[in-house]
Order: sequence, then C-alpha cells, then structure tokens
Amino acid sequence: MENSKPKTIAFQGERYAFSEIAAKQFFTEEITCVPCKTFDIVFEAVENGSAEFGIIPLENSLTGSIHRNYDLLLEHELMVVGEVFLRVEQHLIANPGVSLSDIKTVYSHPQALEQCRKFLTSLPGVEPVASYDTAGSVKMIHDQKMHDSAAIASSLAARIYEMQIIKQEIEDIPENFTRFHVLSKNDKKFAQPDKTSIVFSMKNIPGALFKALSVFALRDIDLLKIESRPLRGKPWAYIFYLDFSGNMDEERSKNAIRHLQEMSNFLKILGSYPSGYSKESNKE
Amino acid sequence: MENSKPKTIAFQGERYAFSEIAAKQFFTEEITCVPCKTFDIVFEAVENGSAEFGIIPLENSLTGSIHRNYDLLLEHELMVVGEVFLRVEQHLIANPGVSLSDIKTVYSHPQALEQCRKFLTSLPGVEPVASYDTAGSVKMIHDQKMHDSAAIASSLAARIYEMQIIKQEIEDIPENFTRFHVLSKNDKKFAQPDKTSIVFSMKNIPGALFKALSVFALRDIDLLKIESRPLRGKPWAYIFYLDFSGNMDEERSKNAIRHLQEMSNFLKILGSYPSGYSKESNKE
Repeated sequence: MENSKPKTIAFQGERYAFSEIAAKQFFTEEITCVPCKTFDIVFEAVENGSAEFGIIPLENSLTGSIHRNYDLLLEHELMVVGEVFLRVEQHLIANPGVSLSDIKTVYSHPQALEQCRKFLTSLPGVEPVASYDTAGSVKMIHDQKMHDSAAIASSLAARIYEMQIIKQEIEDIPENFTRFHVLSKNDKKFAQPDKTSIVFSMKNIPGALFKALSVFALRDIDLLKIESRPLRGKPWAYIFYLDFSGNMDEERSKNAIRHLQEMSNFLKILGSYPSGYSKESNKE
Repeated sequence: MENSKPKTIAFQGERYAFSEIAAKQFFTEEITCVPCKTFDIVFEAVENGSAEFGIIPLENSLTGSIHRNYDLLLEHELMVVGEVFLRVEQHLIANPGVSLSDIKTVYSHPQALEQCRKFLTSLPGVEPVASYDTAGSVKMIHDQKMHDSAAIASSLAARIYEMQIIKQEIEDIPENFTRFHVLSKNDKKFAQPDKTSIVFSMKNIPGALFKALSVFALRDIDLLKIESRPLRGKPWAYIFYLDFSGNMDEERSKNAIRHLQEMSNFLKILGSYPSGYSKESNKE
C-alpha cells in the first residue's frame, strides 16, 4: 500500500536552505522537509527512521568535494538513491524600502559570504557576519525588522519572507553548482539507475590506480568521476572516490566490482541511482 | 650574487594567518611576508615582481581541493616550486583574565568557524561572527580590549598578541591538514624536485582517463594525486588534476607528457618541486 502521507526529507540547515531547494527539485510531489543542525543528525534521522530520506551536498564546482560527507557515507549504512545538481545563485536581500547605502551588516552562512567576498569587500564600511544558514539570515532580518542589515540567500528565501532583492547574483564566480546525494535506509528506485558511486582503497601494489581503472576500461564502462584522497600518516595509502556509468544489476558492473575487489583492501558501494541533471538555475 | 635582503612572500590573509605559518615552515631563513586581501592579489604580486614568491592553499583534508586556486594557476603564468603540508589546529583565544563564561561573540575566518561548528553550537548564547582572517580576529579583540569576545586562530597568533588560549584544539575533526603550493615567476630549485603537478583535459575518446593514466603506468611512474573536475555545460569534458613522482628533467617524465599530449586537448605543467612533508602540528 502506498503511503499517503508526504515523504519526510532530512537536510542540514534551516528552512529554505539550498539543500531544501535541491530536495524540492528532486521530489516532484509534496514533501515534508526536516531541518537538522548538522550533517551527522541528517544521517541519524534517516537511520533511525525519523526521516524517510536525507539529502546532503557532496561537491561544489568551486570548493570541491565535501570529504566530511564522504566520511559519513562510510560510517553509516545508508544508500545513495538519487542525485541532484543545483545552480547556486546568491542574492543580497533586505526589508522592503531598504537601499544599498543603508546597509551596515550582511548576514549569511560562511560559505555564502566566501562566495561573495569580492562583492562584500567592494562595499565600504559593511561588516559581513556569519550565521548558520542563508535563509535563516533572511528570516532574522525580517523578524527583527532590521533596516541597516541585509542577508545573502536564494531568491526562494526572499520570496518566502516577502523581502526585497537589492542586488541579484552577487557571487564572485557565477558558475557555481552543488551536487547533492539523496540517501535512504533501503534501496529505492526513482527511475532506472544509470550511475554508481563507490569508495575504495587499494593494496600497495605497483601501478595500483591504473590497475583499478583497468577493471572498468576492459569492460567498456565509462568513468564519471575519480578522486584520490591521501590517508594521513600512511604515505602510500589512498581512498578513491569513483563514479561510473551503469548500475549494480548489470553483469558487467558486477564483474568489474568483483575484479576490483581482488586488488583492493576496502570497497564500499554507496549506491546506484539515476544520474541527476542541472536545471538552468534555482529560480522558482 | 646572492640577494642579502630577506625574500618577500605574498600570502592571502592578515599577518600570522596559516598561510604565513606555512611560509615560515617552508623557508628556513628570515623572510618578509606580504599579506594580500585576495588570492588574485597574491598571483598579481608575484607576477609583477612586488613579491618574489607566493604561497596558496591547494587542498584541505576535510574540505577538498580549492578549485579557485587551480583556476588561478591556469590563468597566470607562475610555476609551482614548493609544497608544504600544515596541520591546522584551531584554538579559542581571548584577552588575559577572560573566562569561557564571559564570552558572547567568537570572531574568525568563516572556514575556521565551520571547522569548529560543533564546539561553537555547544556554547549557549554565543554568536559566531565571520571576519576575513583568523589572526586578524585575535588582533581586533586585542586592540579593542574586547572582554566579552574571543577569536579562533593558531597558537602563533595567540603568542604574537600575548593573548590567552582558553581552550585548545577545538576543531570538530582533529585530522585537519592543508596542502600549500609555493609559487614563483621563474623556476627555482630549493632541493631536488621529486614531484610534478599537471592539469589537463582529454579529447572525447572512449576510455580517455584510462588511456591518460596508461602513459604513466607504462613507464612505471607513480601517481600521487588524481582528481577529475567536470566542466559545466560540457557533459563529457573534464579537467584532471594529476601529481606524479618525478621531475620534468627526467627522460621518462618527458616521454609520458609527450605521450599524454597526443590524446589531450589541453595540458599545462604547473611545476616540478620537492615534495612537502607534514610536521606533527603547527605548534611553534
């Protein structure tokens, strides 16, 4: 029997954060989003069943892979069942009637402040102040009717709180995409999975990485991501993040993974899922 | 003739930031460190000769590769001539006599606030505030004699400003290393170079990455880092960051690069340099 209640999705941040926008992009039906203070809590919520799914950022086109979330994927027994690419657009948002020259303080998440560093330093006498969330900063300047402050957040946050966008797209580098993974306790197929993510480390053998990739090349399996991450204190030990085309129901994928296991000393399949696509932007 | 004046090193941040600590770890002699507001300015300073060297963070063990600095390495004609691994240790620093319960505000660089997120959320009623620099925050609370505030920074910053470390090593994850590159306009050999960094992109041919790595494997050259970075809007186009064992004076390195050029549509050698090592910590 289908559950008639909306699905619950745990995410890190406050309401209307980019993770929630990513969740809404992924799930086309109505969903209930559960804000969590930390990524650890997102994983725990899905694990203990208080949320059906979780959504976490995995990498950003400017700042790189979020190793912490890869670590959590290794620590927890959750599966990657979906992928979302979201274009991150940051706007300067204030109460209606406020103009740029009124602003003394700009609140946002540290990452967003970083992404708009050039813009912020171009405003003389304006102090950037870190908060735990982009959308939460909009809520604060709205609730406290702060007329000498602005927030950096998405256009959704501006709309929800009926605030004014003073300046659009203030990021230093406009090509800013974040890739999210949708997590579940059990395997869920939203569409035909065509992409698989694995994490592995290799035995200390000559040309280890080349041999690892050969198990895919020999079976004409396309690689979509490869990243080595050195393990501190072990000069020759690396963890590899690898995404390939195909799913774990396919014979050639199973053969490749079995082959890879022969030469790896650790291997975890994070999940097979339909590959995400990027919408033009996060504009609603 | 050797220049008798101390070498000048440009870095991003204010005095006594982690980049300066990394510079002091790399250059054993006396150096003059030139603080710069942005990474772009670091590159420009080395390019226009106002600084002899630059030092930039390339990747962090928790937050991944800093793509922005790889982009700047592609935009500018500087060479990587050195490498430093630095253990990042964050401490809560305040004026002498201030205790933890007095503190209402904690200032630091957004990245440092992020790294100590769990610790900060454990302090009720304390507001984290972003500033442009870890050490700069210590300077501010020192100069303004702020007794209800603390800063998050290195032990060097605490010592320089004669401040008190209220709580040591407050990072959420203690295994926190940053890798820096030392940049120069001209090739400089500090020791025998044994590591080379390149950036390249491949022609759209089947098994492109496997073929790229084969040029090294076939010549028994060890790979030390490999990372793919998708190019947005070009579904099959990737930029690869690759480090290998060896220097560009060696015949087999030259052969491998010549071989790689046959199948790549872009390739840049960032430099050959002596591989860095990590000191146990940044304690002075």
